[in-house]
Amino acid sequence: VLIGPGLLKQSPELFEKHQVGERLFLISNPLVSRLFTDDLARDLSRNGFNVVSLQFPDGEKFKNLQTVENIYTDLIDQGADRSITLVAVGGGVTGDVVGFVASTFLRGVRYIQIPTTLLSQVDSSVGGKTGVNHQEGKNLIGAFYQPYLVCADTETLLTLPQREFQSGAYEVLKYGLIGDLEFFNLIASSMKDIQNRTQTVLTDVVRRCCEVKVAIVSSDETEKGLRRILNFGHTFGHALEAVTQFKLLTHGEAIGYGMLAATHLSISKGYLDASSGQRIIDCVRSIGSLPSLESVLIEDILQAMKRDKKRAEDQNVFVLLRSIGNPIISTNIQRKNLIEAWERAKESAQIEVAD
Amino acid sequence: VLIGPGLLKQSPELFEKHQVGERLFLISNPLVSRLFTDDLARDLSRNGFNVVSLQFPDGEKFKNLQTVENIYTDLIDQGADRSITLVAVGGGVTGDVVGFVASTFLRGVRYIQIPTTLLSQVDSSVGGKTGVNHQEGKNLIGAFYQPYLVCADTETLLTLPQREFQSGAYEVLKYGLIGDLEFFNLIASSMKDIQNRTQTVLTDVVRRCCEVKVAIVSSDETEKGLRRILNFGHTFGHALEAVTQFKLLTHGEAIGYGMLAATHLSISKGYLDASSGQRIIDCVRSIGSLPSLESVLIEDILQAMKRDKKRAEDQNVFVLLRSIGNPIISTNIQRKNLIEAWERAKESAQIEVAD
Repeated sequence: VLIGPGLLKQSPELFEKHQVGERLFLISNPLVSRLFTDDLARDLSRNGFNVVSLQFPDGEKFKNLQTVENIYTDLIDQGADRSITLVAVGGGVTGDVVGFVASTFLRGVRYIQIPTTLLSQVDSSVGGKTGVNHQEGKNLIGAFYQPYLVCADTETLLTLPQREFQSGAYEVLKYGLIGDLEFFNLIASSMKDIQNRTQTVLTDVVRRCCEVKVAIVSSDETEKGLRRILNFGHTFGHALEAVTQFKLLTHGEAIGYGMLAATHLSISKGYLDASSGQRIIDCVRSIGSLPSLESVLIEDILQAMKRDKKRAEDQNVFVLLRSIGNPIISTNIQRKNLIEAWERAKESAQIEVAD
Repeated sequence: VLIGPGLLKQSPELFEKHQVGERLFLISNPLVSRLFTDDLARDLSRNGFNVVSLQFPDGEKFKNLQTVENIYTDLIDQGADRSITLVAVGGGVTGDVVGFVASTFLRGVRYIQIPTTLLSQVDSSVGGKTGVNHQEGKNLIGAFYQPYLVCADTETLLTLPQREFQSGAYEVLKYGLIGDLEFFNLIASSMKDIQNRTQTVLTDVVRRCCEVKVAIVSSDETEKGLRRILNFGHTFGHALEAVTQFKLLTHGEAIGYGMLAATHLSISKGYLDASSGQRIIDCVRSIGSLPSLESVLIEDILQAMKRDKKRAEDQNVFVLLRSIGNPIISTNIQRKNLIEAWERAKESAQIEVAD
């Protein structure tokens, strides 16, 4: 995993140094192509690589088997063999789809991730999760398959729309909360620099997020135990995405709400002290304002939780905090605690922050 | 890998002993269901397993992504989670499809192979190759994914049609030729018992084939080097299947022809002595008569070889023999040698064997 500003421009040398094969298929969406991939293809071609660019439309609704099959067909039509390398340039959708294609084309070819969003730089580019959606649910089809190389160029984040950048910042905060107190302190104290996308700070923060994730994933590659703590904020978060039909909230915003709810649950269960809780809430709010969810019914949220694929033995798994940086898995949560935590989360989200 | 007569009836105990989970999805085709799976489902249910049976139509043409997607949908509709175990009951197509579904559903669930053909017992049930066809070629989509358990019940072979059984016998012979001389001698001397499907002999032969394969595969899981010797007879064989549109020949018969051609190539290149070559030819012929290929043009075969996905740097890879049990990889084969080897292979196949 390489992280830093300007990596995209250095790709030809980096690919040579890491002995990536000569035949590259760059895969991205039309917008990312205009921003980055067209230039990248040109630079790589000039340096002797044999480059083919493929595109598929942007968005979660194209993260499906049909897109995967279209890419297989393109690869076959171009005479792709096992020596090729797929290069995913873009956000989480591109990375997940391309990783899945790489894991299943000719029983596995090399792939490189070039994540260009904050969310994908800290989250989907490490851990080897690949996959697509099924009409009946997200990420139901997929495989664990490790990229050959990850190049996270923090300069690509300069072009991200503000809301998408903030969405990634919620995931950054998650790594502070499950990682360690010192990292949380860094995030809380550098939030302005993060928001200004200062390259040195972003490089440091993205690297530390990846380190937290690598440490967790490497001890638990197939998600049976420790890896579940990566789902801090996700039990509520996934349910919120589902009840709002993946339209009202970005993934990061849903996790923002989920972290607020998990924080209140941690306090009400007696795990977390109130002043640490307040620090977390303040930090969530410092990222930006969350869309109002006043119209969402708690009963719908609870129903959606029951359909979560990460349920274990009919109980939802919650990741709570004993302290900042010290997560704990809990399955034994009462309905009334959930309702109360949700009410408090909504209140925490709504109050305006003084600047 | 468990091998022997009567294993199917012992499945409930075997599954319990090997701590297979409680929720099982048995997947097979309609014919195999009538022969084996219906009884198996009943036995397992009586022993406390939660069993759902799924079927998809028989044959290579249903080995595609559409079938895979249908199985995903069935699994989701039945509320399948990560604790389930898929059980593939049938031949190579069933094993390959179910293995691929297992490798990609919820990023990987357990699966068990119950191969019911000779070919799948010796070949497709070990090695972790899973996959489906793309409209532009066989097995272009797939993954390496190991089964949790393989139960090869040699009694299931008693119901196999003669031609399909013989087809498997060619693959058995392949393992003798690439494995060791002693195993080849056993196959050659027990061909009558094998053909009569004597259970003790079949158990021994299937086990030894699997041992040869495991030894090769475990030293080379992703097919970069040694594993290629498993393709003895397959360079010609795949080309023959392609030019006859997968209709005239079974896979085993194509490999039978391919082994004859590889034997003649081995002799003409000076690797193999003529008397060993004759022993191999006699053994291939003792399996049965091969369909005539007089109408197939050598030019078409050579063209089909050029499209083989296992080509390396524009040259076809041939597995030849230095002696029986002693294979060697060769890429440097002249066109005239191929034409001559094919002519001799056809002659060897056509001469009637004295009983």
